[in-house]
Amino acid sequence: MESNLYLGLVHHPIYDKRGEVVATAVTNFDIHDIARCARTFGLKGFYIITPLESQIQLVQRIIHHWAEGPGAVYNPTRKESLSLVRVSRTIEEVSREISDLWQRRVKRVATGASHYPKSIGFGTLRELLEDRNTPFLILFGTGWGLTHEVKDSSDYVLAPIEGVGYNHLSVRSAVAIILDRLLGDRISSSE
Amino acid sequence: MESNLYLGLVHHPIYDKRGEVVATAVTNFDIHDIARCARTFGLKGFYIITPLESQIQLVQRIIHHWAEGPGAVYNPTRKESLSLVRVSRTIEEVSREISDLWQRRVKRVATGASHYPKSIGFGTLRELLEDRNTPFLILFGTGWGLTHEVKDSSDYVLAPIEGVGYNHLSVRSAVAIILDRLLGDRISSSE
Repeated sequence: MESNLYLGLVHHPIYDKRGEVVATAVTNFDIHDIARCARTFGLKGFYIITPLESQIQLVQRIIHHWAEGPGAVYNPTRKESLSLVRVSRTIEEVSREISDLWQRRVKRVATGASHYPKSIGFGTLRELLEDRNTPFLILFGTGWGLTHEVKDSSDYVLAPIEGVGYNHLSVRSAVAIILDRLLGDRISSSE
Repeated sequence: MESNLYLGLVHHPIYDKRGEVVATAVTNFDIHDIARCARTFGLKGFYIITPLESQIQLVQRIIHHWAEGPGAVYNPTRKESLSLVRVSRTIEEVSREISDLWQRRVKRVATGASHYPKSIGFGTLRELLEDRNTPFLILFGTGWGLTHEVKDSSDYVLAPIEGVGYNHLSVRSAVAIILDRLLGDRISSSE
């Protein structure tokens, strides 16, 4: 079945350590790990969101290397996962692109490590995703996380992953866990 | 409650792309991402397993930097996660160390991306972990995965994570998903 879920990795606007709104640099490991997760769970697309021209070019070079350059021969499974990757300047631009494609407004879901008013649980989002006519864009922040403005302007904010008195997962790990909770087929693997 | 689960990241013996048994280099991102996951899910320890002296020293330098050096001041949450990290030369050495500590033989669980005879499901391993008097060591392979010898000599082999016709997750993502399936508290977060 065709997926209605897209993922956005946001490099701006996000907070830095001091709570200031900044643009982070793109991390090579983020692209590969998240693309492989997105492919594993059958996502429809993975957007790297950054307004910085140098970073946009960097991502395009990485995609080219693995999709058409020497990497495609060395490791064909990377080609398969990176075919999901797109670059976009803003969350708005991604939203418009998806909404245009589906002829229906995309619903945005923000994620984060802390509790937020009116956040929804994983079970609720699983159910929402069952509406296959509506596209969803789940947003992950780099650095110290998505800004309050991004959360407030999203349709939903997802509950955080609860740890044992510690919630400092890398964005790569958070993506893996959240996609598994939303889409992982527990029936086939739980015994 | 005190955890009875330890994690081992194996750099030898594992397969390379051509199926030959090799020792891989330690990856900085593996240490950090997996240590943060291990801390999030309350694991008892995280062993980097490598026989290479240069790699052992590298890991020790990284731990020192974040636990006592400049990193401890810059990012205290890294100190907390890296306090779980140990280095060991072989799987046997880790097993002996844990068994001695618990005065009980550690049970080894191998993981992998492919199906293996007599593998157990996630639900079964969750139940096994309920025996709090027995320590468990879950092993993850780098490169192209743990050797058959490692799997055959383990007490259990865990079922793979099932993707949509693609199972090429990074070891970092596999660790995150598997720890969540084994230890994630779905009750508090599923609604």
